Amino acid sequence: MTVYGALDIGGTKIAGALVDDAGTLVLRAQRPTPAQKSAPELMAAVTSVIDELAAHPMWDEMTCLGIASAGPVDTAAGTVSPVNIPAWRHFPLVDEVAAHPRLPVGLRPVLIGDAVAMAAAEHWLGAARQSENALCMVVSTGVGGGLILDGRLRTGRTGNAGHIGHISVDLDGSLCPCGAPGCVEGLASGTAIAAQAQAAGWSTPAGVAPTAAAVADAARKGDRRALEAYERAAQALAAAIAATAALVELDIVVIGGGVAQAGDTLFVPLRRRMVDYAVLDFTRGLPVVPALLALDAGLIGAAAVASAQAGTPALAASPRP
Amino acid sequence: MTVYGALDIGGTKIAGALVDDAGTLVLRAQRPTPAQKSAPELMAAVTSVIDELAAHPMWDEMTCLGIASAGPVDTAAGTVSPVNIPAWRHFPLVDEVAAHPRLPVGLRPVLIGDAVAMAAAEHWLGAARQSENALCMVVSTGVGGGLILDGRLRTGRTGNAGHIGHISVDLDGSLCPCGAPGCVEGLASGTAIAAQAQAAGWSTPAGVAPTAAAVADAARKGDRRALEAYERAAQALAAAIAATAALVELDIVVIGGGVAQAGDTLFVPLRRRMVDYAVLDFTRGLPVVPALLALDAGLIGAAAVASAQAGTPALAASPRP
Repeated sequence: MTVYGALDIGGTKIAGALVDDAGTLVLRAQRPTPAQKSAPELMAAVTSVIDELAAHPMWDEMTCLGIASAGPVDTAAGTVSPVNIPAWRHFPLVDEVAAHPRLPVGLRPVLIGDAVAMAAAEHWLGAARQSENALCMVVSTGVGGGLILDGRLRTGRTGNAGHIGHISVDLDGSLCPCGAPGCVEGLASGTAIAAQAQAAGWSTPAGVAPTAAAVADAARKGDRRALEAYERAAQALAAAIAATAALVELDIVVIGGGVAQAGDTLFVPLRRRMVDYAVLDFTRGLPVVPALLALDAGLIGAAAVASAQAGTPALAASPRP
Repeated sequence: MTVYGALDIGGTKIAGALVDDAGTLVLRAQRPTPAQKSAPELMAAVTSVIDELAAHPMWDEMTCLGIASAGPVDTAAGTVSPVNIPAWRHFPLVDEVAAHPRLPVGLRPVLIGDAVAMAAAEHWLGAARQSENALCMVVSTGVGGGLILDGRLRTGRTGNAGHIGHISVDLDGSLCPCGAPGCVEGLASGTAIAAQAQAAGWSTPAGVAPTAAAVADAARKGDRRALEAYERAAQALAAAIAATAALVELDIVVIGGGVAQAGDTLFVPLRRRMVDYAVLDFTRGLPVVPALLALDAGLIGAAAVASAQAGTPALAASPRP
């Protein structure tokens, strides 16, 4: 059995795993992300996860180590600047992980954006498994994505390809924190859905956080302000997905992340809006489906990407039609 | 010397050429497109171009034949439905050309969209020659495009990849004739530029057609309505180009077509608007340059694409850094 190492660095948790060549997590470790702490304190949490993995006998059989990280990342430089982890800006995560004393000699960690990792995971074992051309999206606090083109992960030179959250679908729209007007993320993220419902007068009882999940609950009960917030998110997602399909030709779109957990509350208006925006012969009828791999997609995808670069590709082990 | 055949089918002209492996047009033939005539009359013009090429002694050395056509095309089906040629809808152009009696036995023509062909030409011999990842656009009566990814032409399953003219950059915008709201083409095509200037009160002297070129002349003389029409087009193009760069990571953008002939009148506001929309670390500073190959890009690109599929790739003959 081949063993792949994986880390997944997010704003909430830092996870690690040893993954076998069937994509099964043999061992999993996790720490809360000290997101507001200093760069060394953040790195100490990563080190602690690695320590736990390295204590397992299979650690020494590890052939590669993939790191999925919240973005932006720069895979060429090996650095990360996660929006929700302020102390890390151009932080040399690859070098820092490589310097861990238990890392096998000569093993260079492979860095990838977390949404790109999710795309690799869904292509290996999930909803994009039989697709040559797929857009996989994470719709959550932010909106991210990754692309499979001609059966291979498209990472781009810096590992950021598929960055669908920051394309403008409203060229005169409000400025996104990224600096551009009318980004998808500003209309369709969980944060945006909650803000839109609140702006329309929706609120939660005292003690209940006004999350996108709470908006989804209200939408299921027929609250019009909640339904409209999901409708607007669906419209922005549909415009962005149709644009991507027009640009690269897609076979399928896979959507995961917290907002996708709303199920039909998101997917029904999204599929209806797709009819408005995906109107070309080669974009019409594009399937939009939920992701199959949930919380561990980042770890599984990091393992898949690292194994491909190490020459022991997990993806090749997956049955292809 | 290897000889490639090429046809370029547009709403104005039907051109054909024999192209050598340096991309030089050895022989060129052209007929006006009888755009409003019947399907057989249109095909007769194509046949006449082929007849002229076939009379040349080099015709018999032809190793492949590429066809660039105004879109939409369906390269899988071998059919074309050019917007500006109403009598051809799902017209089996590949079969019809293959049936020409002078076509070498076993030679199957290769169909490609004209903007995708332009991208292949600019990558072979033009402004994208040293680029691994390029978006090449035709901004003219319509707006089209083609993508080079990882040094190779991305055609997509039906040959329509790079279809940037029909991505929505204004999700609540006016309906485009394609059926979707707020398409780039509706804001940035030559037609849109002229319409926008006229809507603002600009007009031409009697006898002068109100074209995008006339708007550019007025803009150079300082007419504010004309300047604003180009500014709006530049804004839409910038949003769409930045979106493409975020989705696939680009090294360069090349713009040709009639509207690009306006030169600085288009490129100065376009580059300024790029600063507003291309704000991510990996999209900022993306070069946007004019195309180098003018009228014959379709023919040269058709030859390049056909030669690649025939296993005698012209692209491989081009020096790469």
